[in-house]
Amino acid sequence: MKPLRVGAVGLGRLGKFHAETLAFHLRDAELAAVCSVTPNERAAAEESFPGTPVFANYERMLAEAALDAVVLSTPSDCHCAHIKMALAAGQHVFCEKPLGTREEECVEVMACCRAHPNQVVMLGFMRRFDPSYREVKRRLDAGEIGRPMLVRSYSVDPAAAIDGALAYLPHSAGQFLDMAVHDFDLARWLLDSEPVSVVAGGGCYAHEAFAAHDDGDHVGAFLKFENQAMLFVFAGRMAAHGYQVETEVIGTEGSLRVGTVPQRNHVEILDGHGVRRLCSQGFLERFETAYRDELQAFVQCCLEGKAAPVTVEDGWCGTRIALAAQRAYRDDSLVRLPLTARGDLAK
Amino acid sequence: MKPLRVGAVGLGRLGKFHAETLAFHLRDAELAAVCSVTPNERAAAEESFPGTPVFANYERMLAEAALDAVVLSTPSDCHCAHIKMALAAGQHVFCEKPLGTREEECVEVMACCRAHPNQVVMLGFMRRFDPSYREVKRRLDAGEIGRPMLVRSYSVDPAAAIDGALAYLPHSAGQFLDMAVHDFDLARWLLDSEPVSVVAGGGCYAHEAFAAHDDGDHVGAFLKFENQAMLFVFAGRMAAHGYQVETEVIGTEGSLRVGTVPQRNHVEILDGHGVRRLCSQGFLERFETAYRDELQAFVQCCLEGKAAPVTVEDGWCGTRIALAAQRAYRDDSLVRLPLTARGDLAK
Amino acid sequence: MKPLRVGAVGLGRLGKFHAETLAFHLRDAELAAVCSVTPNERAAAEESFPGTPVFANYERMLAEAALDAVVLSTPSDCHCAHIKMALAAGQHVFCEKPLGTREEECVEVMACCRAHPNQVVMLGFMRRFDPSYREVKRRLDAGEIGRPMLVRSYSVDPAAAIDGALAYLPHSAGQFLDMAVHDFDLARWLLDSEPVSVVAGGGCYAHEAFAAHDDGDHVGAFLKFENQAMLFVFAGRMAAHGYQVETEVIGTEGSLRVGTVPQRNHVEILDGHGVRRLCSQGFLERFETAYRDELQAFVQCCLEGKAAPVTVEDGWCGTRIALAAQRAYRDDSLVRLPLTARGDLAK
Amino acid sequence: MKPLRVGAVGLGRLGKFHAETLAFHLRDAELAAVCSVTPNERAAAEESFPGTPVFANYERMLAEAALDAVVLSTPSDCHCAHIKMALAAGQHVFCEKPLGTREEECVEVMACCRAHPNQVVMLGFMRRFDPSYREVKRRLDAGEIGRPMLVRSYSVDPAAAIDGALAYLPHSAGQFLDMAVHDFDLARWLLDSEPVSVVAGGGCYAHEAFAAHDDGDHVGAFLKFENQAMLFVFAGRMAAHGYQVETEVIGTEGSLRVGTVPQRNHVEILDGHGVRRLCSQGFLERFETAYRDELQAFVQCCLEGKAAPVTVEDGWCGTRIALAAQRAYRDDSLVRLPLTARGDLAK
Repeated sequence: MKPLRVGAVGLGRLGKFHAETLAFHLRDAELAAVCSVTPNERAAAEESFPGTPVFANYERMLAEAALDAVVLSTPSDCHCAHIKMALAAGQHVFCEKPLGTREEECVEVMACCRAHPNQVVMLGFMRRFDPSYREVKRRLDAGEIGRPMLVRSYSVDPAAAIDGALAYLPHSAGQFLDMAVHDFDLARWLLDSEPVSVVAGGGCYAHEAFAAHDDGDHVGAFLKFENQAMLFVFAGRMAAHGYQVETEVIGTEGSLRVGTVPQRNHVEILDGHGVRRLCSQGFLERFETAYRDELQAFVQCCLEGKAAPVTVEDGWCGTRIALAAQRAYRDDSLVRLPLTARGDLAK
Repeated sequence: MKPLRVGAVGLGRLGKFHAETLAFHLRDAELAAVCSVTPNERAAAEESFPGTPVFANYERMLAEAALDAVVLSTPSDCHCAHIKMALAAGQHVFCEKPLGTREEECVEVMACCRAHPNQVVMLGFMRRFDPSYREVKRRLDAGEIGRPMLVRSYSVDPAAAIDGALAYLPHSAGQFLDMAVHDFDLARWLLDSEPVSVVAGGGCYAHEAFAAHDDGDHVGAFLKFENQAMLFVFAGRMAAHGYQVETEVIGTEGSLRVGTVPQRNHVEILDGHGVRRLCSQGFLERFETAYRDELQAFVQCCLEGKAAPVTVEDGWCGTRIALAAQRAYRDDSLVRLPLTARGDLAK
Repeated sequence: MKPLRVGAVGLGRLGKFHAETLAFHLRDAELAAVCSVTPNERAAAEESFPGTPVFANYERMLAEAALDAVVLSTPSDCHCAHIKMALAAGQHVFCEKPLGTREEECVEVMACCRAHPNQVVMLGFMRRFDPSYREVKRRLDAGEIGRPMLVRSYSVDPAAAIDGALAYLPHSAGQFLDMAVHDFDLARWLLDSEPVSVVAGGGCYAHEAFAAHDDGDHVGAFLKFENQAMLFVFAGRMAAHGYQVETEVIGTEGSLRVGTVPQRNHVEILDGHGVRRLCSQGFLERFETAYRDELQAFVQCCLEGKAAPVTVEDGWCGTRIALAAQRAYRDDSLVRLPLTARGDLAK
Repeated sequence: MKPLRVGAVGLGRLGKFHAETLAFHLRDAELAAVCSVTPNERAAAEESFPGTPVFANYERMLAEAALDAVVLSTPSDCHCAHIKMALAAGQHVFCEKPLGTREEECVEVMACCRAHPNQVVMLGFMRRFDPSYREVKRRLDAGEIGRPMLVRSYSVDPAAAIDGALAYLPHSAGQFLDMAVHDFDLARWLLDSEPVSVVAGGGCYAHEAFAAHDDGDHVGAFLKFENQAMLFVFAGRMAAHGYQVETEVIGTEGSLRVGTVPQRNHVEILDGHGVRRLCSQGFLERFETAYRDELQAFVQCCLEGKAAPVTVEDGWCGTRIALAAQRAYRDDSLVRLPLTARGDLAK
């Protein structure tokens, strides 16, 4: 099979990881171009990927490089525009989450996708590809824990990352869109249902800086779903023990948990601090396999003409829930989400 | 020191355990009388406590037995009346939770307590005496995890108890008053703050019978507190693995968890089911030490003329939060709790 | 039933605990006298047990106090003599482990016991009364893990206790008799079999002081049993995380573990040190329930004329294995234990 | 850099995995040929690696394929011969453990390696490349747990694999060489010391078939090292919960454990069986990363002319300890290992 020629756009931490994955670790794919607006990142790419064309301009890359697909790791507020450009250029698209940060752009990009039905557009909710989350989904669907009653899902960055988070604040779309969107997506996927209402809380418990952006450093949300299940989400910036991504599904006949202790390997330490495990300190460490498996899945979809396992509609649902949670947080109110049949979401 | 003469009233599972504790395991106390309206329970008591007077009638016990105090393990809707009768008879009172099931009776009984300032009245929120919860409280108060942001607290009975729960349904005050009241009390105690709003969800996921009582078999609630902390509570009837009482406090500098795995002892089993721990199957198994320590504390308060560590005001706060959660559940609404300075609660 | 009148002899840490148990926490027993050669301990006893006769001399206590039984928490090298004196005085005896430190005295005391067949003599291997160990024994006997192949058992004191251990060195009977004797007893009890050979290792890894006593600060031993099962024992003075008493039984169809993480309660801490549990720091903390339950069992045996669940023969077996291990350690040799039918042990 | 052309020899489970690793997941390497004496395996290889030459004969592959190196996953008793042939053909060699099964062939192959000093020969003790074991080694070397006193290491295959083990019996080199050799190597590597004596035990607890080969289905060994540390090894065929590879290092200031619960991912299940984790079921599942990292290290050594991180001398040490343990097992004796300075091992 001729390998899929992929251009990696955006070479920040995750973008660089995606580029390396494409270059060295996938079957049936090759890294055919990289693109970054940041000179440092381009210089690093020249070294890491000798012989691979490096672009400073996304439009030029689309025009000049010989590509079948692009992988977008660009800022959240560029996603929709970048997807549309790639579609217009005939490329398949893999785009990091969230789909967009505003309702209109999401609706537009969904329309655009429908206008290019033969091009794959896949959203980067990588947790769906994590072996642990996949096992939970499989057991849940097999009825092993009965009827799901509650999903609890936490997404908290390690405390060590707080300086970066403060520096990034001007570009942040807020906790709900940046972080909790993963949990909203997980709950939709796990429950196979859509939320009907949301309330939210939280605040600036440690860093007032977030208040200027109508955000908290840690936030919580409580949602009810069409199927009567509940979702409780906690998202934030400062878990002392590490990258705290944990999820629990409580059913009538059992519970499934992922990542209660986000241990980074099989080591246990017994010393003056007690008996302890050290934890993952970031998304690349925790989700390395998931990130690789999702790109491999994307490559296979493109080559085999299959539908994307995570769609722009999924992206839109995540964004609209996050926006509703944001409104509930800001207004201290109970926000109802329109009862929407799944098929209608993209209308 | 002359031992405190205590009458144990109500000899169901917990009442019998209290009686045994008084008879055999406390310092400075003696079981001076027992009382039950149930013939079986009286017969069993004759055997377990030879020589101890057994009464079928509470008023008669108060009138005839030589007592300093009573321990009430009677039905929830009798608590307030029984407390008032004991106070009138000059007794100290230890009463099981909840204080009452209706606002008026709680307010009345608080007034009655104020009229008997030299008699101890203590509420049975035993979790405050559990060594694990005490350690959490101590570390939290010492600032070890920074500022508390979230309390998450679950109270789910073991699945094996569901038949009993269904049989008891006519007498149940509902999930929020029966079970979650413990979690509400814990959060107030841990956070040293009062809630300002509550929403609730849940349903009859497995047993429609609860719907006839405007209740669910499992319910959830999300509360905001004056100090901006959040509380998420999940309470229910059917934890497959056992008696699931677990609590987590997430602070800006760390987290503390109690009972994530409610293991019943130090045994771990490695077999075809994986690597596993078996769990406590009920409150007596899990909270044996706490139940004993709280009665010992009550005895010491009575003998030494000290204030009760858990008061009727605490009881009233638990009940009013539970009633608000119940309203939120039934109306699918956001219920605001009056901003109440602690001192005003009993007015 | 008339309570058993018990005299507690030796009021060190464990002796005092036994006395308190007898005074306050048992059914059908009363603390009728205490005895200690240490003035401080006697003074403390006057305060803790007002009204209870306090003796400085064991013989006098046996002569003067109105007793049915004695509980001996005296130094290891006095056990045999003290048991014989109590038997001569007509008392039932509960004696702390080890039975003795020399072969001859053990053989003599067994003969003495046979000469007083109506008096209970029970050895203090309290682990057999721990709820976790009991569950392991029950599951093993029920065949749940198939045929036992290996017992691994550790007994290490907390690092914090090292100064005490060094001060106590002149009185120590050595690691194998002081500590590992518990593990030898556990293995005999769990396997229902006797060892046939032993090799040992270890050394003074941190404290040369032990070498002067032909001992190590940490030692290990590997034994084979008549039933072909193996035993690996590790015993020592300095576990950084706490009181490390852990045991594992590996069978052909599963394994059972006790105390892999000797956590002291249900609390888990998530902070900059990782996710951790704090551990028990000593035998009283870890085995509180076991110590109480074994004394309750002793009381019941005395009152009901039943055989002791842990016998002087068990004590002798523990001692003889410990002595063999000591020889193997000192000679760096493989020591064979005489194949001894259980019934012959006391001959 | 021109990629290293590698021929994969032996295409059983592990051999096939190595071939896939070389073909798809490494940097700077290419799978240039494969070789198997088994027709099925060759047919599968044709499909998996289209375009890669497939050989039925090792000598012919060495003669005809354009190779820089070979990876040997052939039967244990062929290793030494295959290494010598590859060296004669000018190839670098990566060879699976154990180095050999007889003393003479190990000594010969070491001499042969010394005669080809510019060719890399690396042994496949992959655990040294596992991230968890590496962390243990790093912490141990950094002095974090003080002086090592005991290594305990278990290697037990999952019960599900017993039929395969029985079928393979005629080709087995015995538990000590097949399995425990990993633990012996780990201990040498972790302790940086050599053993001086060994005793062993075990038996046919479930399957008499092993007795015909002077072997047990489960065996244990106790070793003392030059640096006074102890090693306890348990190896066998039937862990009910899965692939039980666990190791513990106890030091004077702390302990480090790897794989106490060999959980296969981050999922925890709470159901009628308790709270449990499911475990890895085999070496490929558990050591996937280690197998890849060791081959990547081999490739880098070949390309950069560096010494192998795991040598034939390491292989010989593992084998000679395993042979001594085997003798101790068969004779029920204490076997002394010659005190051998590391440099003398290959003489």
